[in-house]
Amino acid sequence: MRLATVRTDSGPRAAVWREDGWHALPAPDLSAYLAAHTTAEADGLAGDALPGAVPLLPLPAPGKVICCGLNYADHITEMGRELPSHPTLFAKYADTLVGPDAEIRLPDGLDVDWEAELAVVVGTDIRNAGREQAGAAIAGYTVANDISIRDWQNRTLQWFQGKAWDASTPLGPVVVTPDEIDPVAGVEVTCRVNGVERQRGNTKTLVFDSAALLAYVSTFTVLRPGDVVLTGTPGGVGMGMTPPTYLADGDLVEAEVTGIGSIAATIRFSR
Amino acid sequence: MRLATVRTDSGPRAAVWREDGWHALPAPDLSAYLAAHTTAEADGLAGDALPGAVPLLPLPAPGKVICCGLNYADHITEMGRELPSHPTLFAKYADTLVGPDAEIRLPDGLDVDWEAELAVVVGTDIRNAGREQAGAAIAGYTVANDISIRDWQNRTLQWFQGKAWDASTPLGPVVVTPDEIDPVAGVEVTCRVNGVERQRGNTKTLVFDSAALLAYVSTFTVLRPGDVVLTGTPGGVGMGMTPPTYLADGDLVEAEVTGIGSIAATIRFSR
Repeated sequence: MRLATVRTDSGPRAAVWREDGWHALPAPDLSAYLAAHTTAEADGLAGDALPGAVPLLPLPAPGKVICCGLNYADHITEMGRELPSHPTLFAKYADTLVGPDAEIRLPDGLDVDWEAELAVVVGTDIRNAGREQAGAAIAGYTVANDISIRDWQNRTLQWFQGKAWDASTPLGPVVVTPDEIDPVAGVEVTCRVNGVERQRGNTKTLVFDSAALLAYVSTFTVLRPGDVVLTGTPGGVGMGMTPPTYLADGDLVEAEVTGIGSIAATIRFSR
Repeated sequence: MRLATVRTDSGPRAAVWREDGWHALPAPDLSAYLAAHTTAEADGLAGDALPGAVPLLPLPAPGKVICCGLNYADHITEMGRELPSHPTLFAKYADTLVGPDAEIRLPDGLDVDWEAELAVVVGTDIRNAGREQAGAAIAGYTVANDISIRDWQNRTLQWFQGKAWDASTPLGPVVVTPDEIDPVAGVEVTCRVNGVERQRGNTKTLVFDSAALLAYVSTFTVLRPGDVVLTGTPGGVGMGMTPPTYLADGDLVEAEVTGIGSIAATIRFSR
């Protein structure tokens, strides 16, 4: 099943994909839908067809957006680090997210880098969950680009200030339920800059898979429906290039996960 | 002016302190009050007296709780680091906060440390604010204890997972408006464990003061009424003792800021 928040003539709407296109769900967006319903209910709750509907940011109001760094063996090596015994975690905000076809507006002069990622969407409350419970709490998967302001990320020991710029992390276009996609078996995560492939990784090589990440996070904080966990990025980021290469004004950066779709963002610098 | 969220016989309530005690404000808590009103309006909006009212967690629903580490020169030295050119920032959640007279329940075996701090409460939306605008956006100040799970904090490069345990950061008891307290001129921040003073610092020694922190954060993300920024902790944390000393089951840890008040928490370990 594919779920989304879509733009319609009468405003945004949670929606489920059927053979003939998007159908309305009883909520203004997928954050609100997941707060009130399970994904399993979506088929029975599907209403009118929504011709011309276009996916927006699927989850506009997650209470928590938690990211895992250093989770693909090749990216870890590229950053000059050792394989971790625990996930490296940091936070973003709902404000950090932006839709699947975005212009990312940033001040001129920042070192803006790309990080294509598989993102996990939480479907039920979990706290102190084991692996099995955490896996069962996954509502679905979507695509993220953890656009990172490297100069700010590296100003101090804590990455947060380079990771939480408003409207800088594209997410979407749809949330695909676990019956249709299995990241443990493996899906390809890729990133292209102006059409040139820069990243390619497979989620089967994740050090910590989706269920492991949700279980780990739930040890210290509750996760709720609509919360999002980014699973980390494969090798090939701009910071790892020789010399380091960052995004320029007008650059088009696309992140894709097989079985889900792709998200595109254009970088716009202002003075 | 002193503002709080108080417990009353008819449930929690935003309140303002007058000579004869707490008076009701037109909101269920201070988060809701600040979302709808300014602190300057509180005097005119004050309603019935609330006899027997007791301060609770003043801000139960901040969208952002952002913390500054390494901001007192003596604490920076104690941790073996150099004076920073930029604030070191990390995130907590509304879920991380707990009231001013709390039991903090954690699993047995964690290295639980104390960090008494001055916390700044945001009063108006700011983004890309300069120092003056950021200073004018301060609704008031309160006390925080950035209780830190050091073993988790130090598992990876990112501190977040040791800083965001649910209901582990006491905050309160009241929010004091800037006309009554001036942290730039200096207020004392202290921490006592079972009555023994462990930390004492003065906010006049902060590397980045409240207005500077709000302005800096607003460069990358919007701050809204009711958001909270913790300004860092002075020297004297348990991790800096020889040998490192952490909190035990039943320990009482108190954080105090002169001119605001004190918050107390009892540590309760479970198996």
